[in-house]
Amino acid sequence: MKISDIFLSQTRINKYINRTPLLESPVLNKKVGGRVLIKPEMLQVTGSFKFRGACNRILQLTEQQRHGGVVAWSSGNHALAISAVCAMLKVPAYIIMPETAPRMKIEGARGYGAKVRLYDRATENREQIGKTIAEEIGGVIVPPYDDWQVMAGQGTVGLEIMEQCRELGIVPDSVLASASGGGLVAGIATAVRTLAPDTDVYCVEPAGFDDLSRSMVEKSRVTNQGNVATLCDSLMVPTPGALTFEVNRRLLKDGLVVDDAEVGYAMARCFEYFKLVAEPGGAAPLAAIMAGRIDVCGKTVVAVLSGGNVDPAVFAQQIVR
Amino acid sequence: MKISDIFLSQTRINKYINRTPLLESPVLNKKVGGRVLIKPEMLQVTGSFKFRGACNRILQLTEQQRHGGVVAWSSGNHALAISAVCAMLKVPAYIIMPETAPRMKIEGARGYGAKVRLYDRATENREQIGKTIAEEIGGVIVPPYDDWQVMAGQGTVGLEIMEQCRELGIVPDSVLASASGGGLVAGIATAVRTLAPDTDVYCVEPAGFDDLSRSMVEKSRVTNQGNVATLCDSLMVPTPGALTFEVNRRLLKDGLVVDDAEVGYAMARCFEYFKLVAEPGGAAPLAAIMAGRIDVCGKTVVAVLSGGNVDPAVFAQQIVR
Repeated sequence: MKISDIFLSQTRINKYINRTPLLESPVLNKKVGGRVLIKPEMLQVTGSFKFRGACNRILQLTEQQRHGGVVAWSSGNHALAISAVCAMLKVPAYIIMPETAPRMKIEGARGYGAKVRLYDRATENREQIGKTIAEEIGGVIVPPYDDWQVMAGQGTVGLEIMEQCRELGIVPDSVLASASGGGLVAGIATAVRTLAPDTDVYCVEPAGFDDLSRSMVEKSRVTNQGNVATLCDSLMVPTPGALTFEVNRRLLKDGLVVDDAEVGYAMARCFEYFKLVAEPGGAAPLAAIMAGRIDVCGKTVVAVLSGGNVDPAVFAQQIVR
Repeated sequence: MKISDIFLSQTRINKYINRTPLLESPVLNKKVGGRVLIKPEMLQVTGSFKFRGACNRILQLTEQQRHGGVVAWSSGNHALAISAVCAMLKVPAYIIMPETAPRMKIEGARGYGAKVRLYDRATENREQIGKTIAEEIGGVIVPPYDDWQVMAGQGTVGLEIMEQCRELGIVPDSVLASASGGGLVAGIATAVRTLAPDTDVYCVEPAGFDDLSRSMVEKSRVTNQGNVATLCDSLMVPTPGALTFEVNRRLLKDGLVVDDAEVGYAMARCFEYFKLVAEPGGAAPLAAIMAGRIDVCGKTVVAVLSGGNVDPAVFAQQIVR
């Protein structure tokens, strides 16, 4: 992936996406002793950055491919993004979701007109179901991260960050983004490190799902145990993507790990300082900063908040203490 | 107040404020059968639009006036805005707040370094206290709405809306903003109706505090009973401002009134569709749209969401049902 892929992706998707602002809070800055700029992707269409990659990928399908439709599997943000892009472009969408997925996400995908096929996590394989459907209908599978055009779409977050920093007349010391499959941080790192080679990019992962951080140390892809609980439902992929890891192993400075208490605290501060709803995975980079996983004293740091699709009860529990 | 006052205000405050985005939700649009664009001023510094007017006014003080300091009374958003602007410009701030003001707002003002003088609502007069302090210290009183420069600062919300609509290639059919003293909607109406004379501007008020709506009907300023309860703590001014009413009586199309249940419902939808924290008064324009107070079918409507400074427990109560 090159900066040109991201630049052309931006040109392609610009009129469909929200250009999310870069925000800061004088109270937070004072508290951490540095300058923290947040990139609130919960304000993106469908409530997460996933809309960018889905948009970039689906806009490039041929007329015939669009006619067949798009097939995807996801329990959350990727499902909503694919459904919304397909609704917008009048392309049929088939989403494979676990029976146990949050009601609001299943209903959300259906609300956009997607056909949702529920499956049993214990007895069925979602990729197999997806491939079968794709063959039957002549549809195209759009994977959640391990795809160059999806990654280039997510990279527009990084390109916007650098453009917005330029408008402010600053070069950030570092940029933090959460990692599940690693597509978001791979796209961001490509944009940021091409345009500002001295800026460090970090991935942030929840405890027990630090596969990318450990893979960077091991210099090869390792897998999580998987039977650990985490608040960060959107960051539970067991292994880094093959393509994303090729990018991330070269470009990332390091991996940072946060626990549930730190994530909950960051969700509450996001409410207090920014009036934003962050889902647990979306608050992880802010959690890493506030927990002191990285030294921000006197530095300028950008934290990408990836999404805000969280159940009201879960959110309420984190902000009321 | 003329468009030039607002334009020059924008030039003055631009580097200090957040240019809040104009956002929309395909799900909300589908639900109401029209296009609803929101202007989320909870993302403004200090969590409300008040920062704009405070900034514009205080930046124009002379060196000598800045030395003396700024005096203001408020139980909420104006207090936070004045305190933050003064901290930024190193001007002493004296805020008179009721003993019963929300703890987070008192602590918020103090956190910015303001001197907070608490008073007893039953036995003391805040304006008298303010005037006495201002005389003692040689300070300047910055009123919350009945001031041309404060109004011009709030008007930058309207100017940004029109610029952002132009970028989208649209002219909105109407713009809705909440009214307490009426400074926000007066500034917005001046900008919007000067640049797009066919666009209607409406004020939105909570039931029991519809003084501006009734004053427009009566063609003179009327007062609320005042002993009514409302969720909208930020919209409880008893009478329209003298200066703001001169503007609003000429420029507003009409007044819309919403009740607590409609406001709570809009806060929950704001969480769901936009991942934004709206305080009750901040959600009032969205409440008016969703309650059908105005026909948006096939129309393009802008709703200004004025702020997001709400107690976590109050917010949680509205989103979890």
